[in-house]
Amino acid sequence: MSKFWSDIVHTLTPYVPGEQPKTQNLIKLNTNENPYPPSPKALAAIAEASNESLRLYPDPSSDILKQSIANYYNLDTAQVFVGNGSDEVLAHTFQALLKHDKPLLFPDISYSFYPVYCGLYGIDYKTVPLNANFEIDVADYSQPNGGIIFPNPNAPTGIGLALNNIENLLQQYPSSVVVVDEAYIDFGGESAIAFIDKYPNLLVVQTISKSRSLAGLRVGFALGHPDLIQALVRVKDSFNSYPLDKLATLGASASLNDKAYFSKTCQRVIQTRDQLTLKLKALGFEVLPSQANFIFAQHPKHQGKDLAQSLRDKQIIVRHFQAPRIENFLRITVGTDVECAQLIKALESIIA
Amino acid sequence: MSKFWSDIVHTLTPYVPGEQPKTQNLIKLNTNENPYPPSPKALAAIAEASNESLRLYPDPSSDILKQSIANYYNLDTAQVFVGNGSDEVLAHTFQALLKHDKPLLFPDISYSFYPVYCGLYGIDYKTVPLNANFEIDVADYSQPNGGIIFPNPNAPTGIGLALNNIENLLQQYPSSVVVVDEAYIDFGGESAIAFIDKYPNLLVVQTISKSRSLAGLRVGFALGHPDLIQALVRVKDSFNSYPLDKLATLGASASLNDKAYFSKTCQRVIQTRDQLTLKLKALGFEVLPSQANFIFAQHPKHQGKDLAQSLRDKQIIVRHFQAPRIENFLRITVGTDVECAQLIKALESIIA
Repeated sequence: MSKFWSDIVHTLTPYVPGEQPKTQNLIKLNTNENPYPPSPKALAAIAEASNESLRLYPDPSSDILKQSIANYYNLDTAQVFVGNGSDEVLAHTFQALLKHDKPLLFPDISYSFYPVYCGLYGIDYKTVPLNANFEIDVADYSQPNGGIIFPNPNAPTGIGLALNNIENLLQQYPSSVVVVDEAYIDFGGESAIAFIDKYPNLLVVQTISKSRSLAGLRVGFALGHPDLIQALVRVKDSFNSYPLDKLATLGASASLNDKAYFSKTCQRVIQTRDQLTLKLKALGFEVLPSQANFIFAQHPKHQGKDLAQSLRDKQIIVRHFQAPRIENFLRITVGTDVECAQLIKALESIIA
Repeated sequence: MSKFWSDIVHTLTPYVPGEQPKTQNLIKLNTNENPYPPSPKALAAIAEASNESLRLYPDPSSDILKQSIANYYNLDTAQVFVGNGSDEVLAHTFQALLKHDKPLLFPDISYSFYPVYCGLYGIDYKTVPLNANFEIDVADYSQPNGGIIFPNPNAPTGIGLALNNIENLLQQYPSSVVVVDEAYIDFGGESAIAFIDKYPNLLVVQTISKSRSLAGLRVGFALGHPDLIQALVRVKDSFNSYPLDKLATLGASASLNDKAYFSKTCQRVIQTRDQLTLKLKALGFEVLPSQANFIFAQHPKHQGKDLAQSLRDKQIIVRHFQAPRIENFLRITVGTDVECAQLIKALESIIA
């Protein structure tokens, strides 16, 4: 608290990201990073660009990266916005497209940054409870709104939403922007990108942090009608002309261009996830059906908080949210097969 | 214009950065980049970090970089904030510290992003004219205000403000945050950092883009009392937990640690600037006294706009602002000695 702070600062409840431990030798299954390295082509592109030219400003609109994204998804570059991680893309989205007279709607159990953005930009919002199976029921969104946002698959549940449900929302609220936050879509979900040419009220947000193993670079993007993209560009150019540095732009672009590597690593994560799910169920866990690179699970006889602490004592970190309805759950990132085997071994000894 | 836009988007007048040409073979003297490469130690640090670990999120608080900055300026890390370029640091500063009931004050001729930030955050502001010599006269700031911000040296004039003037403002308005934007301070100005322990209302903003030849990395920072830094952190953590990627954090840190290289390249820029000033004056230009890595100059017999176009025709780009009081000036970045000789040669032929 300080007399120097703008009023808004006093009211903020900032987001708290998962721990990035500074010690080594931990099995890190807490922030949904990919266990496999980035594409070698991405690392080569970064190495090639790490030279004298860093004295120059980067391309303010990151055209090379936009073109790679447009090519990958068969869109026009005017339908692509890029930012410094999908968190920045989401922040601009909240400010540029989701502040209206009627409340913004999002699930009660969802990405916990959403209410933080609302606080930062003074956006009225209303949370819509997931159903008893922790699913989004689009019928529950049939109420006056100034916009709708949800992750698909949802976080931290991992549960995906079928495309016909998303299309229902797009049709039912043609004057509301519907933002589908697809941070985890590449691990088995159905992307709404197919609807972009059809619905001018759809914005899809993605990231290279998870499925492209480049959380360390900070690149996210949004796809939608050029009118929506233009709103994001106007806010971006009123905030920071050059949000993406040269290395991030070129590394991300090379990563997008390497489809073969991407497919291979995504498939490995999916296979490990499905095996891990079976093993957790064998230990008595209730596991929500995940289409993401993490698993959300609870044990009928053990508190989530206690399990997280016991795992931590064994050098394994997972994420636990002290929040209504989900306080007994653990969110476990899908690691390598070896890491998941160590997790299961540790849980066996804890539960025994 | 779109029904989907939040109200604020319709009202924005985004900042337009200087051109980043995609063609080669231009002499680029338009965006105040350093003509010398980054420290070899910075490039080595980036190369070393460009590996498998990019799959992981970076340290959200960039502690290694904060420590390098704190060491360099003999401050505590609690007095240091880092962001994705000084433009992001300034954006957070406007939102976190400069929105109050009374208007924010800044010079009429100054960094043209300031009014854009005010538009983005709904900040009431009032511009204070530079005096007839294009200098900041602190007596003109003796009026009710909710904060004061100016670059030192000022941009695009290049004129520096002596520290006793800044101290006067800090003393006269102990309840206003005074932000000194020192993007160009390392080329001969007097930094206000010396006042940080004395005045809790002082915030100094700097960048590694210019004096450390790393515009391509996007790293800026702010220095001030921990109360001010905490406001910036609260906004940052409500906007984007990880604004700095791993390569930028480590490259910037290594750059800060290489004092010898930094001093050498700054001195070379200063020497070239002083020689270029003499040569421009010999051609009949009026040259404002610069403490920055650029020169602001006008010619009594030639329009600034025409000169800029004629230089462009000769593959040399400089910056021209179509703005009151300065429309006849050119802002010329100090290049290498060879580039400046080519500029002078081109101007000789244009003016002849």
